[in-house]
Parts: sequence; C-alpha cells; structure tokens
Amino acid sequence: MDLVGEDLKQVNQTILDRMHSPIALIPQLAGHIIAAGGKRLRPLLTLAAAKLVGYEGDRHITLAACIEFLHTATLLHDDVVDESDKRRGRDTANAIWGNKPSVLVGDFLFARSFELMVQDGSLEVMGILSRASAVISEGEIHQLLTANNIETTETDYLDVVGAKTAALFAAATRIGGVAAGRPVAELDALEAYGRNLGIAFQIADDFLDYSAREAELGKSIGDDFRDGKLTLPVIHAIAQADDEERAFWARCLEEQDFSDPEAEADLAHAMTLLARHDALKVTVARAHEYAEAARRSLDMFPDSRVKTILNEVADFSVARAY
Amino acid sequence: MDLVGEDLKQVNQTILDRMHSPIALIPQLAGHIIAAGGKRLRPLLTLAAAKLVGYEGDRHITLAACIEFLHTATLLHDDVVDESDKRRGRDTANAIWGNKPSVLVGDFLFARSFELMVQDGSLEVMGILSRASAVISEGEIHQLLTANNIETTETDYLDVVGAKTAALFAAATRIGGVAAGRPVAELDALEAYGRNLGIAFQIADDFLDYSAREAELGKSIGDDFRDGKLTLPVIHAIAQADDEERAFWARCLEEQDFSDPEAEADLAHAMTLLARHDALKVTVARAHEYAEAARRSLDMFPDSRVKTILNEVADFSVARAY
Repeated sequence: MDLVGEDLKQVNQTILDRMHSPIALIPQLAGHIIAAGGKRLRPLLTLAAAKLVGYEGDRHITLAACIEFLHTATLLHDDVVDESDKRRGRDTANAIWGNKPSVLVGDFLFARSFELMVQDGSLEVMGILSRASAVISEGEIHQLLTANNIETTETDYLDVVGAKTAALFAAATRIGGVAAGRPVAELDALEAYGRNLGIAFQIADDFLDYSAREAELGKSIGDDFRDGKLTLPVIHAIAQADDEERAFWARCLEEQDFSDPEAEADLAHAMTLLARHDALKVTVARAHEYAEAARRSLDMFPDSRVKTILNEVADFSVARAY
Repeated sequence: MDLVGEDLKQVNQTILDRMHSPIALIPQLAGHIIAAGGKRLRPLLTLAAAKLVGYEGDRHITLAACIEFLHTATLLHDDVVDESDKRRGRDTANAIWGNKPSVLVGDFLFARSFELMVQDGSLEVMGILSRASAVISEGEIHQLLTANNIETTETDYLDVVGAKTAALFAAATRIGGVAAGRPVAELDALEAYGRNLGIAFQIADDFLDYSAREAELGKSIGDDFRDGKLTLPVIHAIAQADDEERAFWARCLEEQDFSDPEAEADLAHAMTLLARHDALKVTVARAHEYAEAARRSLDMFPDSRVKTILNEVADFSVARAY
C-alpha cells in the first residue's frame, strides 16, 4: 500500500470526479457501492503492474479508475442478478434503491469507463477491456447455467471462474504494462499473473463459503449452498458421492428442498460430506496451484519490492482462506 | 430501403456473426430480440448519413451494427426495468428467460459493440458512442425519477427524451459522417438532424399511447397512463388542470389508484381531459416542430435522393402518429 498509496489516492479522486452526473441519484448510488470500498484490489493490480515494469507517467491512474468502474458496474448487476441484500455487511444498492436504478447506474458506469478509455486514447487498452467485458458477461451467464445443476464439472467451473473473475484481473495487470509500452512477452507475463491470481482468488472465495474457521468467527457461511451454486468444494464431493450422497446434493442444490428453513441441518451434513471426501483440502490445493502459477508468471521480471509484494499477494489470496 | 438495402443486409450479417458466443444462450436470447426486427431505424440512419455525404467505403456497415448492438442492449435492460411482458406483440426476453440473462446479455451486447468499435479503429467514434451510452443511462434514470411525479415539467420531459432516445439517433447520424471523414460543420448538421428526429419520434410515440386512432385500430393504448409515466400529453393537461382535475391526475399517475382493475374508466376520463385542454394537438404540434428542425438541419447538403428520403423520414416520424 505504501508503494502505490499516493497513486491510489489519485485513482479515488478520479473515480469521484468521473462518477459525477447532473442526475444526483447516479453519484449517490455509485458512491454507496464504491465508497463501501472493498480492497480496490483490481485497480491496485494495474498500479502495481505499471510500477513493476518501471512506468513513470500517470496514465495508470486513469486506467486503474477504468478497471474499478467496470468492476463496480458488474457488482451492481451481480447483486441484481443474485437478488443479494448485503455486500460486505452493508445493504446492497438494489436493496436500498431497487433493481431499476442499479441496472441503469451499472450501465452508466460501464459507459463512463469507456469514456475514460477514450480520454486515455489507447485502442489497445480499449480492445483489452471491451474483450474482457464481453468475456465477463459470458462467464456470468455460464454461471447461471451451471447453477442448480449437479452435473457441473470442474472444467465448467474453471471456465466460469476464468471468465467472470479472472478476465478482469488479467486485463487489469496487462494494461499496466500497456501503459508503459512494454513488449508483448512482458504483457503476456503480466496477464498470466493476473489470470492465475484471479482464479486462485475466486477458488479461495468459494472455499470460504464452507470454511469452518469462518463459521467459528461468526461469519455467515453456506450462501452458495443455499443458492445451489456449483463451486469447487461441492463439485469435488459430488464427483466422489455414492448414490445416497448424490441424492442429498440433488435435493439441496438442484431442488433447493431443505430440511429446515435456514438449511442449517443440510449445511451441516454438506460439511460432513466435504470432509469425508477431502473436498476442502483438494480445493485449497487447487488454489495454491494457481497462486504458484501466478508467482511463476513473474519470473521474467527482475527482483524488486513490487515483485515481492505481488508474490505475497498471490500467497495471501489463498492464505486468507484458512 | 432500396437505396441502402444491400448495406442493411450486410449489417444484419455482421450482427449475426458478432452476436456469436460459445454460451449458446447468448445468441439465442440476443437473436430473439434482434430478429424480432423492428425497423432497424437507428442503423439505417448511420447508413443513410454516410450515403448523404457521399461515403464509398464499408466502415458504415460495422458502425451501423455497433449502433444496433447498443440499441438492443438498452432494450433488454429497459424491458427488465419496466417489467415489460411484450415488445412489438412478442414475449420479451425477460418474460421468456427471466431478468437475469436479460441483464447479462444486455451487458454482453454492450461490450461487443465496443469490441466492434475497436475493430473499426476510430477513437472519435468511440468517444461519440461511449458518451451517448452514458447519456442514455442518465436519461433512463432521470425518467425513473419523473415517473409518478405530476410536478414533472416539459423541460424535464425534453431532458429525458433528449437523453434516452435522441442521443443515440444523434450519434447514429454523426458517426455516418465521421466514417466519411467529413468536416465538423457537416458532422454537427448530421447530429442535429438525428437529435431533432429522435425527439420528434419519441414525442410521436408518446402521443400514440393516447391515440384515439390506435384505439380504433384495436391497438392497446394507455400503457404509459397505467405505469404513471409523465409524457408530454399528460404534462400539457396537468399544466392547465383545475383542482379537481389535478386530484384526478395525482390519484392515477402518482398513487396509481384506479377505479377499475384495467383502469378503463380512468383512461377514458384522462382522454376527455386531454381533449378538453387540446393536449394531443399541442403534442403533435411540438413533434412537428422537431421534425421541421430535423429537415432544416439538412439544408447545407445538396439535394439528392437520400436527402429527400431523410426529409420524408422526418415527416413520417410524426405522421405515423395520426
């Protein structure tokens, strides 16, 4: 953070300046979700990637803001699609203002992101981010189609994660290098780092939804289970399920027919099955593989403080899970 | 149509080619709304504008497809926001597949449109269309805020229409000139034509929702009334309402408290009030003013068959209303 803290302040200022609109509801609603903060992980990746390759200009500020606008637009639409009431412990925009303004402010931020790219002036960046945006929507739609379907395979899952999550991570790191005018081999390495990190990050996220430690800390777990989402832990357990277990998963995930309103008993049984088949261990191991691949992607860059931090980010993306 | 019919075929082919995705639901859902057809008015404007200024290349094909993708994305999101079941007599995508894929396929088409612009390679076009997209969202959100509010003024209404409808018409005609590399004065004239035409077109649309002739033809009228939308006919009638009439409009449009389930009796009374205050006549007159302004915008261009047709389009945009 201290390495890019000053840059991040400028990114936040750009975001505030550019979410302005004469329609007051727009900065109000966008501000609610953007100010809620979160980690600003994706724009930080653009800043760090630019720094890793020695960039000295200020285009990375604008580009990091573009990334955060795209991310926020997808969050707004995700919360509508998932009918979510809470995000990071706060009411979602759709819970406060309804679905309509959430859809439309998402559209506004998406458009504004492209306006910012035009201001930056790089067709290459616009190609990367328009492609990433299309892929993200494909991933979200693919995810809709795997929901409540226990035939979903690990390949399906990785397709979804690679698209809905990792595509933006990959674009965020690549454009940091594009801003600096680096050769394609370096851009590909930056992109590979982002992609592998994004996959590790999402697998860890999906692990956390079944984490005994989270449950001990009093955090809510089992949301994916109740929604019938086919995430990696469950996919592993189903792959090794006997007939009785398979019937259990079908009842819960496909039919969403739970034995009690909060599905506590079924969730407890699901946790038992995950443990029986080592599904959480396998999930963490898979996350580690992608984190390790992220680290390896940076091999071509000389050692530096930024490189050390990016490697630590890769480790932490998984370590936070347990 | 015979002037640009061959071009339009190519536009349709580009649309079909570029809505492809490995996620089969995407071309399926997008195809449902795009194939439903409609008039392809907006891409036709790009083709005609390019032809008016003597353009001979093929960039206008790609750009017209961009316009149709943007338009389709907004239609998908509009139908979600308006909770519409029908569009042009067919089930809407959200009625068939639900809101979730409609929101996400809208996002996909939006992204795909920008991918196509990158392929075209003009930063100027991207600036025009990213700006127009942001303005369209602003207009849609502004419209949400004027709904069910009988204090809405004609100025509010024209702001909404200028943004949600006319911004895309204006962009469609301007980029036809940009493709041809014409000087700014001509681009401004093309844009003015599109903007005025778009406003005339929307006013006529809003007129049609209260048109006695439509009612005679058995077409459904009064949707805007039942939804509590503040369109120009109603705004004129409210401006001249006495206390009793004002109470009526407040009950129907703000409280949406109708005297019968289909609001037939209230709609009939609303039509009486519109007639009493000449609100429909004033509305048509206003539409004619904008159609006339559209015609005048083309004054600087030498006479040609395309110019004649564009002038006729301006007249027809209003004439279809009665």
